[in-house]
Amino acid sequence: MARLQRSAEAISLPLPRSLSELAGIIRDGIARAQWPETKVYVQLTRGAAPRDHGFPVSAQPTLIMTFREMHPLASDVRIRGVDAITMPDLRWGRCDIKSVNLLANVLARQRAKEAGVFEAIFVHGDEVTEGAVSNVLLVRDGRLITPPEGPAILSGVTRGVVLTLARKDGIPVDERSMTRSDLAEAQEVLLTGTTVEVIAVVRVDGAAVGTGRPGPIASRLHEQFSEYVRKSL
Amino acid sequence: MARLQRSAEAISLPLPRSLSELAGIIRDGIARAQWPETKVYVQLTRGAAPRDHGFPVSAQPTLIMTFREMHPLASDVRIRGVDAITMPDLRWGRCDIKSVNLLANVLARQRAKEAGVFEAIFVHGDEVTEGAVSNVLLVRDGRLITPPEGPAILSGVTRGVVLTLARKDGIPVDERSMTRSDLAEAQEVLLTGTTVEVIAVVRVDGAAVGTGRPGPIASRLHEQFSEYVRKSL
Repeated sequence: MARLQRSAEAISLPLPRSLSELAGIIRDGIARAQWPETKVYVQLTRGAAPRDHGFPVSAQPTLIMTFREMHPLASDVRIRGVDAITMPDLRWGRCDIKSVNLLANVLARQRAKEAGVFEAIFVHGDEVTEGAVSNVLLVRDGRLITPPEGPAILSGVTRGVVLTLARKDGIPVDERSMTRSDLAEAQEVLLTGTTVEVIAVVRVDGAAVGTGRPGPIASRLHEQFSEYVRKSL
Repeated sequence: MARLQRSAEAISLPLPRSLSELAGIIRDGIARAQWPETKVYVQLTRGAAPRDHGFPVSAQPTLIMTFREMHPLASDVRIRGVDAITMPDLRWGRCDIKSVNLLANVLARQRAKEAGVFEAIFVHGDEVTEGAVSNVLLVRDGRLITPPEGPAILSGVTRGVVLTLARKDGIPVDERSMTRSDLAEAQEVLLTGTTVEVIAVVRVDGAAVGTGRPGPIASRLHEQFSEYVRKSL
């Protein structure tokens, strides 16, 4: 909710309801959908107006929410870990704004799908930023490394929870820029996201990460994340 | 039509009709709309499907066209010329693809509107790329300079026509990268676009361009452009 507010503010889009009203609608939608687990998607636009680049002057914002069944990742995928490829990060300079300007992500994700792998990891020059639909964290010498919040990444909600859990668990966390060689020399590579939660990447561009199997920190953090979610219900 | 085809191809979006069929629909729409002049907007999507980043597998592409009355720029605006501001170019790495991923353009255009000027000119590092809704050309020492086609700009249809007309008219044209100092030292700055056609920028970030009035090459090229359009009807 905070990120929705922040993103809307960053593009001068007024929220048509207060955050607590929105939360009420979401709770209501989940209750009415009656899925075992629900994936909520909230989309807000400036409203209907003739096409123009300048903001419409008198349009009412349009708020759309969908409530779909959430299918958690199959457990064998989690046990095996997933593969990823790297791709040039062609996205714009404000990736911290959650918006539907996702063509670069869509193309990267499709490329991954066609390559038969789970995710595309974006690399900008020498910097590893994030995945097409996930944040990327890695483990080097027992430390958890991930790029800091800023315009180059979308600050994932799962990312934030996982970093907090790691710190509580005594795992040192470095939020710093992450290079190609960090990625190449990592003992573990992790993806975080709403659907993937925490999952280990075991192969990047065909090369094994660490032992080529999910490592202990990925497993530990996923366990803790699941417990955190259970407790929050 | 060629750019629509090229853009669709670049994102692996199959055209649902041939270019000549599309041209037929457009001609039909213009005839039915009966505006004195018509602004046609064509939008193509992959079709309706549940939200996901990977391409939908069986969706039918959705093709939407709008036919609105085209309001040419008021002639006093053209006589006076317009003001512009520069802004950091935050757009993605494939600006040559015409798509609706225009949030950076929308924010820049709105910023220009709020600053009371006509256009925002994007600057990437030291390079002047293009306007939020137009291409930028400038005149230095009698030569017309504009960035070459490539991923940093949208290859404007009006831009292409104007460059051809300039060459025919004996004006030397340099398609090369254009720096901030080119812009600062230009005798004339021109914008090209479907709605603006060819218009002179007389002030950038508050500083006068050349004499502070539309220059001879802008006027000449707009004249030739108008004649070219008249002849094409």
